Amino acid sequence: MSYEIAVIEGDGIGHEVVPAAIDVLDALDVAFEFVEAEAGDATKEETGEALPRATYNLAADADATLFGAAGETAADVILPLREAVGSFVNVRPAKAYPGVDAVRPETDVVFLRENTEGVYAGHEDRLSDDLSTLTRVVTSSASRELAEFACEFVEDGRGPTDDAEEGFTVAHKANVMRETDGRFREEMFAVAEERGVDADEELMDAFATKLPLDPTQYGVVVCPNLAGDVLSDLAAGLVGGLGLLPSANIGHDNALFEPVHGTAPDIAGEGVANPTAAILSAAMLVEFLGHVEEGKQVRDAVESVLSDGPRTGDLGGDATTDEVTAAVVDRL
Amino acid sequence: MSYEIAVIEGDGIGHEVVPAAIDVLDALDVAFEFVEAEAGDATKEETGEALPRATYNLAADADATLFGAAGETAADVILPLREAVGSFVNVRPAKAYPGVDAVRPETDVVFLRENTEGVYAGHEDRLSDDLSTLTRVVTSSASRELAEFACEFVEDGRGPTDDAEEGFTVAHKANVMRETDGRFREEMFAVAEERGVDADEELMDAFATKLPLDPTQYGVVVCPNLAGDVLSDLAAGLVGGLGLLPSANIGHDNALFEPVHGTAPDIAGEGVANPTAAILSAAMLVEFLGHVEEGKQVRDAVESVLSDGPRTGDLGGDATTDEVTAAVVDRL
Ligand SMILES: CC(C)[C@H](C(=O)O)[C@@H](O)C(=O)O
Ligand SMILES: CC(C)[C@H](C(=O)O)[C@@H](O)C(=O)O
Repeated sequence: MSYEIAVIEGDGIGHEVVPAAIDVLDALDVAFEFVEAEAGDATKEETGEALPRATYNLAADADATLFGAAGETAADVILPLREAVGSFVNVRPAKAYPGVDAVRPETDVVFLRENTEGVYAGHEDRLSDDLSTLTRVVTSSASRELAEFACEFVEDGRGPTDDAEEGFTVAHKANVMRETDGRFREEMFAVAEERGVDADEELMDAFATKLPLDPTQYGVVVCPNLAGDVLSDLAAGLVGGLGLLPSANIGHDNALFEPVHGTAPDIAGEGVANPTAAILSAAMLVEFLGHVEEGKQVRDAVESVLSDGPRTGDLGGDATTDEVTAAVVDRL
Repeated sequence: MSYEIAVIEGDGIGHEVVPAAIDVLDALDVAFEFVEAEAGDATKEETGEALPRATYNLAADADATLFGAAGETAADVILPLREAVGSFVNVRPAKAYPGVDAVRPETDVVFLRENTEGVYAGHEDRLSDDLSTLTRVVTSSASRELAEFACEFVEDGRGPTDDAEEGFTVAHKANVMRETDGRFREEMFAVAEERGVDADEELMDAFATKLPLDPTQYGVVVCPNLAGDVLSDLAAGLVGGLGLLPSANIGHDNALFEPVHGTAPDIAGEGVANPTAAILSAAMLVEFLGHVEEGKQVRDAVESVLSDGPRTGDLGGDATTDEVTAAVVDRL
């Protein structure tokens, strides 16, 4: 049996880091069939659509999707693709690695971001020449689904510390958004209590102050959609930027994996992009398919290369994407 | 002529830092009449209301208001008070001071936060057992009012660098909230262009990554309400916490000034709270009333004390609130 993986390189360095991740997957003892599809700015220019129906369908039908990055059209590509795979949670680990320059080298946090609603539900209206509105949506069902996932995540020891006792932190703004974030918050605590998982909370603004002051206070952080977007990107700044951060958009029987970084137009096409985030995203893909050992193998190889192997320019080295990728494959 | 200042200490260390700020104001060559009023958790316990009508009216009718902090009831107190003074912008400088331990000592940014709408407009509905919504509101009129203020702020050299050429940065999420943040963004750029002020932009998530990586990239940052809340609190974390940060809620002919910190229940009542944020808020009050020289006098005295005067415990010293306040008064 082999897994069908939809491969969407997208724009810019997507064309460099996704092939790097595939080289690593190919070196594992797992059988994959990779099927390429197009999306992004260039696709829009050619076809008029940033995300052709065929690409959407491929992602929906595959066992998993590996995505690179998209430029101006990012929202038109990634939001429907998250929907295509039925993703309800975006898993975003933000971890500083030894030897990598970081504002806060102690950072090791995993964000579990609600992936379907909040302001992303996208109901906007132009009510008059002066007035526009957006309807922010929070349901108990989506909140509970996220909470169940968070509990399992913690119980399975998949947080930064594998200590399930640590539980999770809910970051929200229920002191202002009383009804919507109030519902979110309430469901998080209700499910945590039902399952005997510890939960505490932090207002999202206070979280933004406290994370840079001491990131070790937090482990697994569960957030509504936009809060998860902003707070996980803040953590990215603390670990030294987006170049190392993978992410997983998880659904019930499908998922999409993407580096958190963008298309990096300044270096695109030069073969010097850092493939780490894409390779770590591939590791999350392998784990999602049930091959936990192989996922760990990839992460260990990446960490080993980060500590004393070749480095790309963003990390102060002068290695190419291929050299870093070869080093990772070598150390698997 | 003397200015009528509404004084609302609120809860916790509000009772310590607001009197400290008043001591400093009293030492200036400006005549004030201070009128005290109640609000906050204790007031709610006593009267059933966190913000009695009399307090609201006092703030609405005064020349300006000095507010301390409120506990659990913070949102019930501060949101109506912002409305009472007709505030359309919340000015939040985040500056690291020499000698104060900071994650990013180069930080010197001023946030101009829209203060009336966004998710704070507060229309929420429980549509079913499963579903709640919040209507996020953005108007061109409020956006333009903020933009006009931002242009004047920049033109008057009130940003971190007094160089008007630097313009301002708009932080928003218009790639997702296309209609609402799209409107906000469009009005910011339109007014900037009309007035010949430079404006650039950053997505709010990218801003959260880039600020910790290099805060010197930014000067004056203009944001929708919640973005301004979270991003300015992030900057607070980079300068070493909330203990030093003042803020001003500015309206057309009235305003309210408040330290960004909360009630600090752990140290409340001990006389050891850091009065700096409240004193700097008082400096902003004095400037708002047109006494720019006296405002600068206070800020200079505060900076001088921070660099070699007595310090409270949060800054590694063991001075009391009174000792720090006396030192500031002494150096005016
Ligand atoms: C491109 C954009 C729509 C997207 C988001 O806001 O979710 C991105 O910022 C991300 O975090 O993956
Ligand atoms: C207390 C709360 C309503 C308030 C806000 O969100 O505006 C606070 O966080 C602030 O920033 O002043």
